[in-house]
Amino acid sequence: MRRLKDIRPIELEDKKLKVLNQLKLPTEVEWLELDSYEEIAKSIEDMVVRGAPLIGIVASYGFAIGINQIFKEKGYIDIVESEKVLNRLKSTRPTAVNLFWALNRMWNKLTKYLAEERSSGEIVDLLFKEAERIDLEDYHANKSIGGYGQVLLKEKCNILTHCNTGALATSGWGTALGVIRSAYESGKDITVYVDETRPYLQGSRLTAWELVQEGIPHYLITDNSAGFLMSKGVIDAVIVGADRITRNGDVANKIGTYTLSILAEYHDIPFYVAAPTSTFDLETSSGDQIPIEERSEEEVKRCGKNLVAPDDTEVKNYSFDVTPASKITAIITEKGIISHVDEEHITKFLKYRGI
Amino acid sequence: MRRLKDIRPIELEDKKLKVLNQLKLPTEVEWLELDSYEEIAKSIEDMVVRGAPLIGIVASYGFAIGINQIFKEKGYIDIVESEKVLNRLKSTRPTAVNLFWALNRMWNKLTKYLAEERSSGEIVDLLFKEAERIDLEDYHANKSIGGYGQVLLKEKCNILTHCNTGALATSGWGTALGVIRSAYESGKDITVYVDETRPYLQGSRLTAWELVQEGIPHYLITDNSAGFLMSKGVIDAVIVGADRITRNGDVANKIGTYTLSILAEYHDIPFYVAAPTSTFDLETSSGDQIPIEERSEEEVKRCGKNLVAPDDTEVKNYSFDVTPASKITAIITEKGIISHVDEEHITKFLKYRGI
Repeated sequence: MRRLKDIRPIELEDKKLKVLNQLKLPTEVEWLELDSYEEIAKSIEDMVVRGAPLIGIVASYGFAIGINQIFKEKGYIDIVESEKVLNRLKSTRPTAVNLFWALNRMWNKLTKYLAEERSSGEIVDLLFKEAERIDLEDYHANKSIGGYGQVLLKEKCNILTHCNTGALATSGWGTALGVIRSAYESGKDITVYVDETRPYLQGSRLTAWELVQEGIPHYLITDNSAGFLMSKGVIDAVIVGADRITRNGDVANKIGTYTLSILAEYHDIPFYVAAPTSTFDLETSSGDQIPIEERSEEEVKRCGKNLVAPDDTEVKNYSFDVTPASKITAIITEKGIISHVDEEHITKFLKYRGI
Repeated sequence: MRRLKDIRPIELEDKKLKVLNQLKLPTEVEWLELDSYEEIAKSIEDMVVRGAPLIGIVASYGFAIGINQIFKEKGYIDIVESEKVLNRLKSTRPTAVNLFWALNRMWNKLTKYLAEERSSGEIVDLLFKEAERIDLEDYHANKSIGGYGQVLLKEKCNILTHCNTGALATSGWGTALGVIRSAYESGKDITVYVDETRPYLQGSRLTAWELVQEGIPHYLITDNSAGFLMSKGVIDAVIVGADRITRNGDVANKIGTYTLSILAEYHDIPFYVAAPTSTFDLETSSGDQIPIEERSEEEVKRCGKNLVAPDDTEVKNYSFDVTPASKITAIITEKGIISHVDEEHITKFLKYRGI
C-alpha cells in the first residue's frame, strides 16, 4: 500500500494561527502568522485560506483568538464585544455553510461556559480546545469520506475534478480530492484531470500542486476542455466538493460545477459530491435559496497581475453555482454514502446517524 | 439606425502586410509590418493573427508575398519554390479549413497564370489582386451573414458568445459577432455575455475590446459561468463561429463550444453557428475526422507572464472541439440560413447556390 504524506494548511502555535498563504502557491510556499480575529477575517475574505471546511476551521480559531483579545484587553469576556467578533467572522463569505456551522458551535460553547460561570482564562482555553476539536474532527471526517468514496472508483480510472477540495481546502486530507487520495493510496491506478477553475485557478494553483507533492498522475486542463474529454470517452467519473447542501440535496459549489453535472448526465458518467455532514444546511429547503457570492471584477479582468480585458468592460463574477439533486449520483459523507439524493433519503440518512 | 465603425485587423500597403498584433490587445494597439511569407506564417502560428476567416485571408496575402519574394530573388517564378511557400503556409494551423480553402484558391490561380504564360510581374500583381478579392469577399460575406442572422434574434435579448468571431477574426465585421453587430446596428436591444475563452482569452482580450469600441452593452464572464446563467434564464441564444464544418454538419470550433451546445440543448436555448460557406469541408464526412490542434502547455500553465501551475504538472491543451450537427439550431451563411443541419440539407443548400 502506498503511503501519502500529510499536507497541513494551518498550524496553531501559542494561540496564534499560522496559515499557508494560498495566494502565493504554487510558485511560493509562504506561511503567515495571524494573531487577531480581524487578520483572520481578512485572510478568509481575501482567499489567503479558502475551501468550505477550512474556512469553518480557521473561523473557529479566529473566534477563540478574538475572545482571547477581548479578555486580554478588558480582563473579562464582554458578551457584546464577543458578538462583534462572531459577526465579523460570519460576514467574510456568504455561500459555504461550514463557516456558520462552525461559528455557531463556537458561540454555543462560549455562552454555555459563560452560563456555567467559568473563569475567563479557562473559557479562552476551552474555546481553543473546541476549535482544535473542529479541526481534528474534520481530518477524521475526510479520512472517512476517503474510505467510503474510494470504493466507488474503478481499479483503473480517469477522474475529473474541479476547484480544490484537497488538503488545502480542509484540515489536511480533502473531501473530493481526499477520495482520490484514498483511492490512490489503496493502490488504484488513478489519473486525475484537473479543471484549472477560473477565475481563481484553484485547480492549477492548488490541486495540481497537491498532486505533484503526492506524485499522483494528473493532467491540467482548461474548464472548456471537460466536455470534449467526456465526448471522447476519457472521463470515468466526476467528483467535486460542496459549499452547502440543502435539505432536498441541491449542492452549491464552485462556479462551473453545474455545467459539469449537465455534461456528466449527458455522457452517462457518474457525478459524485464529497462533503462532511457539516456541509448540510437543513434550514434551507432548496438551492435557489442559497446566497451566491459575487466577487470583484478584477478576478476576471486580471490573470495574475496582467490586465486581460478592457477597462470599460463590466464583469459578472459569480463564485458559485447550484447543482440540482437530480444530477448527483451520490453524496459521500464521513457517515456513509447517500445514493438516492432527495429530501426523504437525506433526512433519513442524517436522522439514523444522529445528526 | 445606428452606424458602427469598421475595425480592420490588417492592411495591405505597398505589397507588405500590416497586421494588428492581437497578442498585445486590449492593453496596446500595435501594428506589425510583415514583408516575407515566413514572417506571415509565424504570425499565424503564434496567433498574432487568428480567427478562421482571417487566417485564410492573411495566408493568401502571404502566398502573394512569397511568390513576389521568389520573383525578386530568381527573376522568375520557380514552381518548386512556390510549392514550398504553399506548404509552409499550410503547415501553420491544422483545424480551420479556410486556410486550406484560401491557399488552394491561390495555388490554382498561380498554376493557371503560369499555364497561360503570363509574365512573372503580371502574375505577382494578379495574385495580390486575388488575395484582395478573398479579403473583400469575406467582408461582404460577413455583412450578409449579419443580415441573415440578425433576423433570428429577438428585439430585446441576451446573447452568449464564445471566443472572438468579430472584426478581428475576419476581414473586418465578423461572423457570430457580426450577427450581433448587425442586430445592434438595426436597433435591437442586445446585451452580449462574453465567455472569456481560456486558455487564450480571445473573449476578454478581443471580443470585449471590440464591443467597447462599438459601445455595445456586454458583460464578461468566466467560461464556468455559462451554465449557471442559462439555468437562471438569463441567456436567450448562443451564437458561435466555426473553424470547419463537415459534410454532415458537425462543427469544429474553439474548445468549449461543444460544452455550450450541450448546455443550450438542455436549457432549450437556440444554438447558432455563423460562418461563411468557405468554412464547409465537404471532403470530410464527419467531425471525428477533423484534426484537432493541440497547443503548448504554456498557454494553460501561464496567465499572461505569470506561472499559475506547478512546473511538474502536465497539460492537455486542445484548441478545438467538435459540436455534433444534432445540437445546432441553424447555420447562418452569407448565402442564407441552413435550418436543418444534416448532410442532405447542407448538400442541397450548397448545390442550389452553386457552391
